[in-house]
Amino acid sequence: MGKQREVKLGAMLLGVGRGTSTWRHPDAQPDASVNPGIYKSWVWKAEEGKLDFIFIADGLYIEEKSIPHLLNRFEPLTLLSALASASERIGLVGTLSTTYSEPFTAARQLASLDMLSGGRAGWNVVTSPLDSTSLNFGNRRQEHPEHNLRYEIAAEFLQVVRGLWDSWEDDAFVRDRSSGVFFDPSKMHTLNHQGRFFTVKGPLNVARSKQGHPVIFQAGSSDAGRNLAAQEAEAIFTGIEHETLEEAVAFYQDIKGRITAHGRNPDDVLVFPAIAPILGQTRDAAERIYEEVANLVTIDKALDYLGRLFEHHDFSSYALDEFFPELGELGRNGFQAMTDRIKREAREKGQTLREVAIQVATPRGAFVIGTPEDIADRIQERFEAGAADGFVLGPVTPRGLEDFVDCVVPILRRRGLFRSEYESDTLRGNLGLPIPANRHARMLVTPANIFSE
Amino acid sequence: MGKQREVKLGAMLLGVGRGTSTWRHPDAQPDASVNPGIYKSWVWKAEEGKLDFIFIADGLYIEEKSIPHLLNRFEPLTLLSALASASERIGLVGTLSTTYSEPFTAARQLASLDMLSGGRAGWNVVTSPLDSTSLNFGNRRQEHPEHNLRYEIAAEFLQVVRGLWDSWEDDAFVRDRSSGVFFDPSKMHTLNHQGRFFTVKGPLNVARSKQGHPVIFQAGSSDAGRNLAAQEAEAIFTGIEHETLEEAVAFYQDIKGRITAHGRNPDDVLVFPAIAPILGQTRDAAERIYEEVANLVTIDKALDYLGRLFEHHDFSSYALDEFFPELGELGRNGFQAMTDRIKREAREKGQTLREVAIQVATPRGAFVIGTPEDIADRIQERFEAGAADGFVLGPVTPRGLEDFVDCVVPILRRRGLFRSEYESDTLRGNLGLPIPANRHARMLVTPANIFSE
Repeated sequence: MGKQREVKLGAMLLGVGRGTSTWRHPDAQPDASVNPGIYKSWVWKAEEGKLDFIFIADGLYIEEKSIPHLLNRFEPLTLLSALASASERIGLVGTLSTTYSEPFTAARQLASLDMLSGGRAGWNVVTSPLDSTSLNFGNRRQEHPEHNLRYEIAAEFLQVVRGLWDSWEDDAFVRDRSSGVFFDPSKMHTLNHQGRFFTVKGPLNVARSKQGHPVIFQAGSSDAGRNLAAQEAEAIFTGIEHETLEEAVAFYQDIKGRITAHGRNPDDVLVFPAIAPILGQTRDAAERIYEEVANLVTIDKALDYLGRLFEHHDFSSYALDEFFPELGELGRNGFQAMTDRIKREAREKGQTLREVAIQVATPRGAFVIGTPEDIADRIQERFEAGAADGFVLGPVTPRGLEDFVDCVVPILRRRGLFRSEYESDTLRGNLGLPIPANRHARMLVTPANIFSE
Repeated sequence: MGKQREVKLGAMLLGVGRGTSTWRHPDAQPDASVNPGIYKSWVWKAEEGKLDFIFIADGLYIEEKSIPHLLNRFEPLTLLSALASASERIGLVGTLSTTYSEPFTAARQLASLDMLSGGRAGWNVVTSPLDSTSLNFGNRRQEHPEHNLRYEIAAEFLQVVRGLWDSWEDDAFVRDRSSGVFFDPSKMHTLNHQGRFFTVKGPLNVARSKQGHPVIFQAGSSDAGRNLAAQEAEAIFTGIEHETLEEAVAFYQDIKGRITAHGRNPDDVLVFPAIAPILGQTRDAAERIYEEVANLVTIDKALDYLGRLFEHHDFSSYALDEFFPELGELGRNGFQAMTDRIKREAREKGQTLREVAIQVATPRGAFVIGTPEDIADRIQERFEAGAADGFVLGPVTPRGLEDFVDCVVPILRRRGLFRSEYESDTLRGNLGLPIPANRHARMLVTPANIFSE
């Protein structure tokens, strides 16, 4: 009998917090997005809870109406490298765009983080949804590539990065002082990639870490996004859009089916829905905390935020209390899955612009509101029903991570659903994912396996 | 009376060490270039000595004949970010190429490091001398730009980065919970740069750190390099090519003259020659250590290394004991100043290929070989003669940094030439460099300065 399957847990670290107004919360530290001490204290808390990883999201374009956390924050790779020194076991996952990065530099910085952390790095592969991003990279991209093209670029980008990560076989560095042999040249490999989008010779100037490659995370939920995830990802983030258990199970099955269709083992790819708990000692207390959070948002901020999801559309010119406007294709070249859903629900429920804006800014359905037992029940239910392999905590209040570790994790542990100690010192080891074989490594031919062939 | 002018000191951290063979030294840790613990112990030692900064060099292309430290090492920005968490006062200076980076990403990662370290970041601006570098960035540059063009790109790159660093005035972030005002939009500035090489809108999504901007270091010693340094740099690295005091004073005066010609205050730009001490308790002991280091190199490795400086030229086809070959323009599109000097000296001294190769691999003139008092004398002499504002230590043996901090720094301190305690918690503060004014900041008009105008 193997050990009971356990849930995996990550925590998104969000600086001054989600949305337009969380920073106004009385417990918030309003400079959190650029405060290294706060990030360190969060990592320590997450590691105390034996969480699998912390996760840093990203974006490459801001303007006056961007939400506070986006305006002024650490860049993920530098932040995670700093956190690598302040932690020992927890995984360090960061977002990096395949549309606006150099594959050689991306491969190198991620490999360097992986080496600095002793094999704890993860990469959340994104294609950058905002078309305005191209304005900050005008020499690289004259215009923002459309949705499907971005995913084609991403697939080739990943091919290059993975190739560079295998530049050195694990036993390439001999480092023999007496003979003067530093490395074995037959175990150094030049990539010579020449593709549609990239030409990269290699080799990379960093070897593989203890976990082989950083773990590949991916979050696209459109059709192209799901296919890339099924083909390349080892962990898949899913948003808050699956409100019902049925939707979540359907998504999980769809993804696992696509993985199988790509000839991969579905157990080697973990699905991580987001979970945003609002915790109270009683359900009433939790409801009051939700109200407190929702009341931090003004209608102006809610409209701005909605506009950002719809390619920076200006919603302030519409009447607030009339039906949500007809927007045609607007919003489809960006946060496609989310904007499609907003339009569909507005139509189905006959919502006004004000209702949509307030709901999108603090969507009740995005939260699990209740006692620690309620949150643990939700996690257990979805995990056992086959809707998730793990969850990414998106803290709602400034103390959301702390409350989760102190109050929910012990319940999961008592139920045998979560670890009491790390199994490994690498991210891959804790997630139970295999170390990718180096594509160049030859099978060692020993007398035993000569005969078995 | 002001305080006596003090020498500034930085230390280059070189992993497994310089050249082809230092890693073979009995004290070496042959995995040092990818060992975070060793880098941390070095930073602690440098900070114990109250050094101004540590410095991480870089390169973007390797091949089989590259020296060991280049083959497998940390990337500078991730490494420095990890070291930021492991230190409190010391400056963190890293190399980043303007030829093969995105200005938005470079500005952002450097600003993030600056914020993570509380204002201790420095950027060594390089243009990437090796033409093979373009092979790893084929989508960005079809071919490696020639020398002067690289410096034109660099000048515009710096203009963009400095502009992005001023996106936010220092008092832009109001963070007033009760009014809900997170920032003052009149203090957020969009760059809208449209130049010959780059188009970057901005604003940057990181504010200025305590020191305003990361400190700009530059090392080019060609004419174009010196002009860029004079125009843009705040600290200038000079190589080991100024063997005599007269050459070093002439270089210093040339640079300071160019700075003045650009309308800048020459005291706001510090000149840092490299110093590579080989320390012994007696001069004889130091000589033995030099011999030990030189004897680690084989002739094959010495030829390989020479070839790398000359655009990957293969020197193994020449007779070792005949005159150094005539190479024409070879070597000028890369390490120009160094290869010109090698050719000139070989011609003047009538050296053979073997002599040149051995000397370039372990150039006696590159070291200061002697007792701690001798090293301190050399530093004092050059500092007081007007050849340097500070020095960058290039450790030769694995314990080079430790020996310098333990044995040379106390002598400098006794002579009143070096600090006993940090003056500041920023790099700029310790170097005595001014905080750059934000280009958008308006002078505060108080009654006092109304009347003084």
